[in-house]
Amino acid sequence: MPSPTEARERMVHAMASMMRKQGYEATGLTEVLEKSAAPRGSMYFYFPRGKEQLATDAIRLSQSSMDRFLDQITGQGSSAVEVTVAFATAMASTLRKSKYTDGCPVATVALEMSAKSPDIRAAIDAAFSSWEGKLAAGFEKDLGPQATAAARFVLAALEGALVRARVQHSVTPLTETSEQLTQYILAVARRKK
Amino acid sequence: MPSPTEARERMVHAMASMMRKQGYEATGLTEVLEKSAAPRGSMYFYFPRGKEQLATDAIRLSQSSMDRFLDQITGQGSSAVEVTVAFATAMASTLRKSKYTDGCPVATVALEMSAKSPDIRAAIDAAFSSWEGKLAAGFEKDLGPQATAAARFVLAALEGALVRARVQHSVTPLTETSEQLTQYILAVARRKK
Repeated sequence: MPSPTEARERMVHAMASMMRKQGYEATGLTEVLEKSAAPRGSMYFYFPRGKEQLATDAIRLSQSSMDRFLDQITGQGSSAVEVTVAFATAMASTLRKSKYTDGCPVATVALEMSAKSPDIRAAIDAAFSSWEGKLAAGFEKDLGPQATAAARFVLAALEGALVRARVQHSVTPLTETSEQLTQYILAVARRKK
Repeated sequence: MPSPTEARERMVHAMASMMRKQGYEATGLTEVLEKSAAPRGSMYFYFPRGKEQLATDAIRLSQSSMDRFLDQITGQGSSAVEVTVAFATAMASTLRKSKYTDGCPVATVALEMSAKSPDIRAAIDAAFSSWEGKLAAGFEKDLGPQATAAARFVLAALEGALVRARVQHSVTPLTETSEQLTQYILAVARRKK
């Protein structure tokens, strides 16, 4: 039998997965309990502040998962272009495998809830900041003082491409954005010299 | 007393406005009827296929509105950089004035509903395609054969910046993205020569 700690983790994982696919509003707590095979009473035992608290934990989980991925692709001495292409390629692969449901793990909730929940907004702001920081560190070698601006730009452009790709049911927007970002990065790197 | 046609239009306007602020799932038909001062029975009279049909019409309205704005900023012989900066500046202004609730009129619904409603997905796909086409036409003079790729890229980057700006409660992501897009456009224009 799973320990209570494991039940809590399964609930956070289920919430993160469902928020990625369908957002916050469409995700019901009953569905989360079912998917995580957790007893009904466990929701308010583990998350006394309810759905918003569960969502905040799920966003932190999504942040950590992406943090680890970014550490991996930036930690091999790769160039700024290689990091960007690896990031876009991974997004495209996840999107295609999920039949265009798994885009950015936090974007849907960001748009639904930023005006409504300061806790959720703060958690997503922290996630984006962390990802921007990790990308910037990976760009430092090639782009020097432009690394932070470039990292924010790359993240924004890929975020927008993910929205377009979900609507288009195609990874083409990610491929094309990756190509244009490559041109941009090369131009920045040239100017730096 | 407003004519029926006007009641229908008010409902579509109310739906478009609420979907922009809070998305599809959080917007209830009762709220739409209240905001548009329309009688209860009028919902299924005007929109026999219900909320999805109303949403699709609201997306078309948002498309037309943005289409007109893009025609305006691209129709004055402005450069590709000027068009991009005008677009980003208008987004920043709308976002700030609305206290960070009015971002892209279709992005929230795009992320919530693309996997669930083929009609909504098709309407948003048509909106994005139209905006890309109008931007591309505006870029043609400066960017030649690169105009279409640049237009798609500019739209994706600004779309992503709008997500980030809503989460950050700041227009800085739009300003910064606009600056990086300017660098990108100048690099593309230089390479074209």
